[in-house]
Amino acid sequence: MGKSKPRNRHKHYNVPVPGTSPGLYEIDDNALKPKITLHTYNERTYKKEELSNINNIDQLVKNKDFNYWFDIKGLADPNIFETLFNKFDISRLVLEDITNSYQRPKLDEYDNDKYLFAVSRHLYLGDDDVLCNDQISFILSERTLITFQETYADCFEPVRKRLEIGKGNIRIGGSSYLMYAIMDVIVDNYFTLLNFWGEELDAIEDRLYDHPDRRIMFDTQAIKRSLITIRKVAWPERDKLNDIIRTDSALISDLTKTYMKDAYDHCIQIIDFIESLKEIASANIDMNLSITSNRMNEIMKVLTIISSIFIPLTFIAGIYGMNFSREDPITGKILPHNMPELYSPHGYLWTWVVMGVIALAQIIYFWRKGWFK
Amino acid sequence: MGKSKPRNRHKHYNVPVPGTSPGLYEIDDNALKPKITLHTYNERTYKKEELSNINNIDQLVKNKDFNYWFDIKGLADPNIFETLFNKFDISRLVLEDITNSYQRPKLDEYDNDKYLFAVSRHLYLGDDDVLCNDQISFILSERTLITFQETYADCFEPVRKRLEIGKGNIRIGGSSYLMYAIMDVIVDNYFTLLNFWGEELDAIEDRLYDHPDRRIMFDTQAIKRSLITIRKVAWPERDKLNDIIRTDSALISDLTKTYMKDAYDHCIQIIDFIESLKEIASANIDMNLSITSNRMNEIMKVLTIISSIFIPLTFIAGIYGMNFSREDPITGKILPHNMPELYSPHGYLWTWVVMGVIALAQIIYFWRKGWFK
Amino acid sequence: MGKSKPRNRHKHYNVPVPGTSPGLYEIDDNALKPKITLHTYNERTYKKEELSNINNIDQLVKNKDFNYWFDIKGLADPNIFETLFNKFDISRLVLEDITNSYQRPKLDEYDNDKYLFAVSRHLYLGDDDVLCNDQISFILSERTLITFQETYADCFEPVRKRLEIGKGNIRIGGSSYLMYAIMDVIVDNYFTLLNFWGEELDAIEDRLYDHPDRRIMFDTQAIKRSLITIRKVAWPERDKLNDIIRTDSALISDLTKTYMKDAYDHCIQIIDFIESLKEIASANIDMNLSITSNRMNEIMKVLTIISSIFIPLTFIAGIYGMNFSREDPITGKILPHNMPELYSPHGYLWTWVVMGVIALAQIIYFWRKGWFK
Amino acid sequence: MGKSKPRNRHKHYNVPVPGTSPGLYEIDDNALKPKITLHTYNERTYKKEELSNINNIDQLVKNKDFNYWFDIKGLADPNIFETLFNKFDISRLVLEDITNSYQRPKLDEYDNDKYLFAVSRHLYLGDDDVLCNDQISFILSERTLITFQETYADCFEPVRKRLEIGKGNIRIGGSSYLMYAIMDVIVDNYFTLLNFWGEELDAIEDRLYDHPDRRIMFDTQAIKRSLITIRKVAWPERDKLNDIIRTDSALISDLTKTYMKDAYDHCIQIIDFIESLKEIASANIDMNLSITSNRMNEIMKVLTIISSIFIPLTFIAGIYGMNFSREDPITGKILPHNMPELYSPHGYLWTWVVMGVIALAQIIYFWRKGWFK
Amino acid sequence: MGKSKPRNRHKHYNVPVPGTSPGLYEIDDNALKPKITLHTYNERTYKKEELSNINNIDQLVKNKDFNYWFDIKGLADPNIFETLFNKFDISRLVLEDITNSYQRPKLDEYDNDKYLFAVSRHLYLGDDDVLCNDQISFILSERTLITFQETYADCFEPVRKRLEIGKGNIRIGGSSYLMYAIMDVIVDNYFTLLNFWGEELDAIEDRLYDHPDRRIMFDTQAIKRSLITIRKVAWPERDKLNDIIRTDSALISDLTKTYMKDAYDHCIQIIDFIESLKEIASANIDMNLSITSNRMNEIMKVLTIISSIFIPLTFIAGIYGMNFSREDPITGKILPHNMPELYSPHGYLWTWVVMGVIALAQIIYFWRKGWFK
Repeated sequence: MGKSKPRNRHKHYNVPVPGTSPGLYEIDDNALKPKITLHTYNERTYKKEELSNINNIDQLVKNKDFNYWFDIKGLADPNIFETLFNKFDISRLVLEDITNSYQRPKLDEYDNDKYLFAVSRHLYLGDDDVLCNDQISFILSERTLITFQETYADCFEPVRKRLEIGKGNIRIGGSSYLMYAIMDVIVDNYFTLLNFWGEELDAIEDRLYDHPDRRIMFDTQAIKRSLITIRKVAWPERDKLNDIIRTDSALISDLTKTYMKDAYDHCIQIIDFIESLKEIASANIDMNLSITSNRMNEIMKVLTIISSIFIPLTFIAGIYGMNFSREDPITGKILPHNMPELYSPHGYLWTWVVMGVIALAQIIYFWRKGWFK
Repeated sequence: MGKSKPRNRHKHYNVPVPGTSPGLYEIDDNALKPKITLHTYNERTYKKEELSNINNIDQLVKNKDFNYWFDIKGLADPNIFETLFNKFDISRLVLEDITNSYQRPKLDEYDNDKYLFAVSRHLYLGDDDVLCNDQISFILSERTLITFQETYADCFEPVRKRLEIGKGNIRIGGSSYLMYAIMDVIVDNYFTLLNFWGEELDAIEDRLYDHPDRRIMFDTQAIKRSLITIRKVAWPERDKLNDIIRTDSALISDLTKTYMKDAYDHCIQIIDFIESLKEIASANIDMNLSITSNRMNEIMKVLTIISSIFIPLTFIAGIYGMNFSREDPITGKILPHNMPELYSPHGYLWTWVVMGVIALAQIIYFWRKGWFK
Repeated sequence: MGKSKPRNRHKHYNVPVPGTSPGLYEIDDNALKPKITLHTYNERTYKKEELSNINNIDQLVKNKDFNYWFDIKGLADPNIFETLFNKFDISRLVLEDITNSYQRPKLDEYDNDKYLFAVSRHLYLGDDDVLCNDQISFILSERTLITFQETYADCFEPVRKRLEIGKGNIRIGGSSYLMYAIMDVIVDNYFTLLNFWGEELDAIEDRLYDHPDRRIMFDTQAIKRSLITIRKVAWPERDKLNDIIRTDSALISDLTKTYMKDAYDHCIQIIDFIESLKEIASANIDMNLSITSNRMNEIMKVLTIISSIFIPLTFIAGIYGMNFSREDPITGKILPHNMPELYSPHGYLWTWVVMGVIALAQIIYFWRKGWFK
Repeated sequence: MGKSKPRNRHKHYNVPVPGTSPGLYEIDDNALKPKITLHTYNERTYKKEELSNINNIDQLVKNKDFNYWFDIKGLADPNIFETLFNKFDISRLVLEDITNSYQRPKLDEYDNDKYLFAVSRHLYLGDDDVLCNDQISFILSERTLITFQETYADCFEPVRKRLEIGKGNIRIGGSSYLMYAIMDVIVDNYFTLLNFWGEELDAIEDRLYDHPDRRIMFDTQAIKRSLITIRKVAWPERDKLNDIIRTDSALISDLTKTYMKDAYDHCIQIIDFIESLKEIASANIDMNLSITSNRMNEIMKVLTIISSIFIPLTFIAGIYGMNFSREDPITGKILPHNMPELYSPHGYLWTWVVMGVIALAQIIYFWRKGWFK
Repeated sequence: MGKSKPRNRHKHYNVPVPGTSPGLYEIDDNALKPKITLHTYNERTYKKEELSNINNIDQLVKNKDFNYWFDIKGLADPNIFETLFNKFDISRLVLEDITNSYQRPKLDEYDNDKYLFAVSRHLYLGDDDVLCNDQISFILSERTLITFQETYADCFEPVRKRLEIGKGNIRIGGSSYLMYAIMDVIVDNYFTLLNFWGEELDAIEDRLYDHPDRRIMFDTQAIKRSLITIRKVAWPERDKLNDIIRTDSALISDLTKTYMKDAYDHCIQIIDFIESLKEIASANIDMNLSITSNRMNEIMKVLTIISSIFIPLTFIAGIYGMNFSREDPITGKILPHNMPELYSPHGYLWTWVVMGVIALAQIIYFWRKGWFK
């Protein structure tokens, strides 16, 4: 926090180009070269290999005793998509959804039950605490899961480790359970983000109390924007998880559905959490406004007290600084009504007394008004 | 931005005249002369011709091997409507809806399944970035699509090009797919608008940070108004698309429905997007208020510091500018209590010392309060 | 706008008296003497006659070849209600609803299908742009429509004219179509009102920009209040129209239902419109607040610049207006440390130089802070 | 209004004690001694008698030709509840609900159809315009209605009178109709309250316009709090009435249900009314804020105009009050550069001219800025 | 209240660690050593014993004439969970939910109807009025209830006492009734909290009226945060209670369901209550803002009145303090236009008169503006 420019100005304007032909996916110019990892596993064994392409996918997945996870990062290779298109008879609309990274989280079911398509969004803080918002696409078919990631940034490591170790249901649950495990880790990452912002909001509240400044407003609004972004993701994520729980597709096992309920519960908690944080952010903004007003009051009080006390006194001093003449300079006649006070033996002292009384009266008045508190 | 008058004051008060007879459509005096283009196409061939009228429509569409798209811009010719009325037995309410351009997006189905009527709204920035809001009406019957546009402003060009080239499903999908393609391009145009406003809001946030001024408020409100307008369109658009997806009408093919789901997804994203932008706009307004308050604080601090330091000093100077006399002018008697300080050898220096101490005390006080930060 | 008191202070507190016996209608003391017009019409003929009472209603409506419209303004005659009670067996609750003019728009169906009872509310601007809110009640039975209006203010004129001319469906559609035509004209009148307020809000925004004053707040709030009133009417109106569309009653023809859908669409647009205007009104209020703050900033800047520049200068002038004596008046000894500047040959000039430097420094400081913009 | 402390600080924290055993009703220590009135009536006759207890309730209600209304105010006598428990086999939970006066309006149906239990809340302004919120409980069984009121405050008088007079359906409709009549009078009383607050809000708006002061805020908030309270009652009241309309219980006659719809309509209007008043209250608060800001602007304008004009003039006067000497007091040499203006023949006049020009320039400047409006 | 730091900064960021394997519960390092109490009871007898473990649970619960309540505080012993896992075949997801204390209130039903799992949240004020938010988990099987508490803080005491005394249904109702009794006491505790905050909000409103200060904002926001927390608990609690009422599980008796409706009603009241308090808190914040503005107005009025009156007077005094010379010091010529007023016999008196008139005019002006009120 405390940089000179508002942060979290992440690009949220990743939108389709009007008039492009749907289903004709295009590889983005900035797409990264794919890194493909194939995890082959069953209850007892586990193997990991790096692939350079998936052209021979039929060979790769032919052994029906294993489950397969194609873990693909980077989308620059059109061959991958053509291969999938041929192998799984995947709709071109799906391929377009994978390559155009502006999809909301969703589950698409297809009649033939050959595969399911799902989208999650991976949110994380990149360099300079910029909120990054990557798309993760899933193609789930029998015994095979394919995941696509836009960038090399990655939150799958814990899942890979669990897969390697084989603890829990991860190797037993089939491909749909693996998909659950990945979706769960993505959703749980949202908690980490919210936690981070929650603590920042608390820190801002402390700064508000200690030494409010104008950056507080910008920092709070930046967090609010991030919360808006995450909420835009969390709501459809919730719907997607609910769709998975309620689907009739044979590709999702009952075990997976039971666990998906858990992820669904987390997602609801995330939405609750977001709303709470938004309310806290709004409260901070309200408080900032109130504190600014209070400080203005304090400043004005100082000005008013000093001015109100000294301006009348200065006036009195001004009076006795006037040069009304005691004597007509031409005739030399005494003008006894012109400022006789100046010639009274204790005029000066009395002036001080009068000034003191005026000042004291004002001080008492302000004191009573509670302005010195 | 930065013009002298609020912009985006588009006419959104396009409303029916109370008491007019429904179903008796009236051609608006400002209606434009129609430009009619007939696109005749099937999987293999494509022909485009300009028509001056559609009186012989039966002739034009008689070949059952082709699909027809009557692309009509400008609504000034009542003959068109009478012809349609006779040919398709179209309800006069529909004709009224086409000519009166204040309809929300909607789908009207009719019992006989001879035709469907739909309305989309084309939003775009016209001259001076004024938001224009044109009505586009669709009459879809078997193998024939008729589109009506109020003005010559046009967003159909990409569709026409795709139709000419014949890439993708555009020539295969039938008339309902063509209608989808047009609706999709209209909806995707909303993204372009939102993108534009999103960037303007970001620019406003930067201006807020760098040199806030009162135009920020007007510019933000202008964008907010545009967002209100687009939201008024996007909600019923979503309902319309949903109606199309769920209709039983044989005029909408299953392929079209699959693709309409895509447009529907986009429409939901648009609504999300609008809400986010509205929140960002509100945040900008809040920040503007806060910044204005902060600047006031700064201004007041300068005033208070200068006034508080110099007013008391001026008072002291005023004191020793008084003319209390050391000597009774008549008796010549010395009045020793009148301002003896003036005659002390170092009175002047001591005055400076006292003034310096007072000023320093105040500076320290203000420093401690953090007013110099 | 611009009157000295808030307008639109219409009486919206027209409420039932607790504890009165339901079904015992009471004629309000301010009720107007009824003016009764009977319109007798069928497809070919049309006759209009003024009646002084409807006691012989059975005679009046006996010819089954005609439709009848009793168009009653003013509710002061209990005979009318007794006659209706006897003729149509109308529930006393209905009679109470007609005479007590605080009903929301609604449709009441009765088991026997002899008649339907409906309420609309006619909103219009009366003298001094006060929003008037009259109740219009409908009793629809076979071939007969009876309408009741509280006041002589009237929006039925276009319908009467269409009835007389016989253009469109108005004479063909039966009594339910006539009821539709009247309800439609009432609803369309809401557009006129909203249009009026929309333009006033635009005018207020212009005033905001040009010369904001405190009346803006009152005028905006007055419009907001009117919007609240119209929204209170539009929501149940929508429900009523929906009820009419969905009713099973044989009294409502299918043709009427088709047209009612049109009125229903208008009603939805009205609700949209109200929400938009409310948001614009709120935006105006926000802007007013912001502009007030900005003007305060400007005022304070002027004060601060003038004060900050001249107060220190005045202090310096005050210093050299002090009368520290160069000479001990008694001993005549020179006091060289008392204000030697006064006796320097160029003391006065140097004073001006110092003052000029101070003023310049401050001007540069304020310039840099952007206070002169 | 205008008292020194916020009003309407009614106790809304009437809550259950955690951990008490449900169904074990406890008589509150502050409960009032019961006053029991038995109304015995049928279509033709009516009798009213005061009872000291209801121990012999079986005797009292044995004649099947009559309906009975036990009208009980004050809940201090546990015998009443034991008697009811024995006679009607009433659930102890119901007895607890009657004695613990924090229930929301509700309808409780029991399987055996022997009785229904309902709760209404009677809102009224007590001493000092404090909003009182009493519970009224109903036990409805065949031919018998028992009502319980916490306090002697009463809104049943109109019903009792109608019962005595026998006008309308009150004696014909059975016990459920009597219950309706009472509930209706309770709901209609809410209108009276809202009317009262509506007028107070109007009065506050007038005060805002004429002479805003800080009490406006407190008064408005007090009304808002009352509105919150009444809304907390009106929503469940609406649900209760709806439950009564839809119940299958034979204890509620069809006639009663028809009339309940009327009360239900009133309740919806009340909720509408509350929302409108809340919006008006919020508008008043907004306006207050705006007016306060405007007044600040006015105050600051006066200060700025006076200060800006006179501070520079005083500075000039200060200049020519300096004592730079024309003569070196020691050498007697003339110092011609020290304030030669003082010795110019028209120096004084020119000073006035310069001052006048400065003042005029500022007045013109402020005039142009519109500060004198 | 009134401490130097915002309170209620309770940890609400108790969230899952992304990527942990679900169903593999982990004992938190800070988990407390379990204290296990077994309550064995039926209608006639009651026995309480402390256990050190539940390894022999089959022995403990074998007598089918009794109900059993395992009342477990502290979760540090994994043996407990393993025992339960073996005995009841409890899902590992449940065990995980018990040990990870971030669950929302919920009811989990399992197919086999062997047990139900439920979560409640115990909210209470701990040291320094910090809001604590503990999880309480329930496993309900036939004749046996097991409750788990994170900490030793406890609200079950009233239930234990009722169980010991045996008053009411507590021993008759079976294990599900006991679960109800505990849930009810938890929910009723929310009332106590809300009551506490309600009174604090009232106290804050009084402080607002008497001597507003900046801590009011922090205190109000702290309460608002607590309300947000409790609302996050109350909404799912309501859903949970509703699920219990509607479940088909044989483990929940009809008697329990009847009573659960009562708890459900309380929960709805709590949600109402929270909303009311939130509105009151917001009102306090609005009022604070308004009061701050009003005080600023007052301060500015004092400053403006004093400055406006005395600055012009000081200017006049300054004028006559100028030293324009009556005599050319060199030629000795009289300069009659230089300040002749100084030599008028009543110049001084007239000066006072003019000053008095100016001051009086301003006082009248300010009086009329109502600035002295």
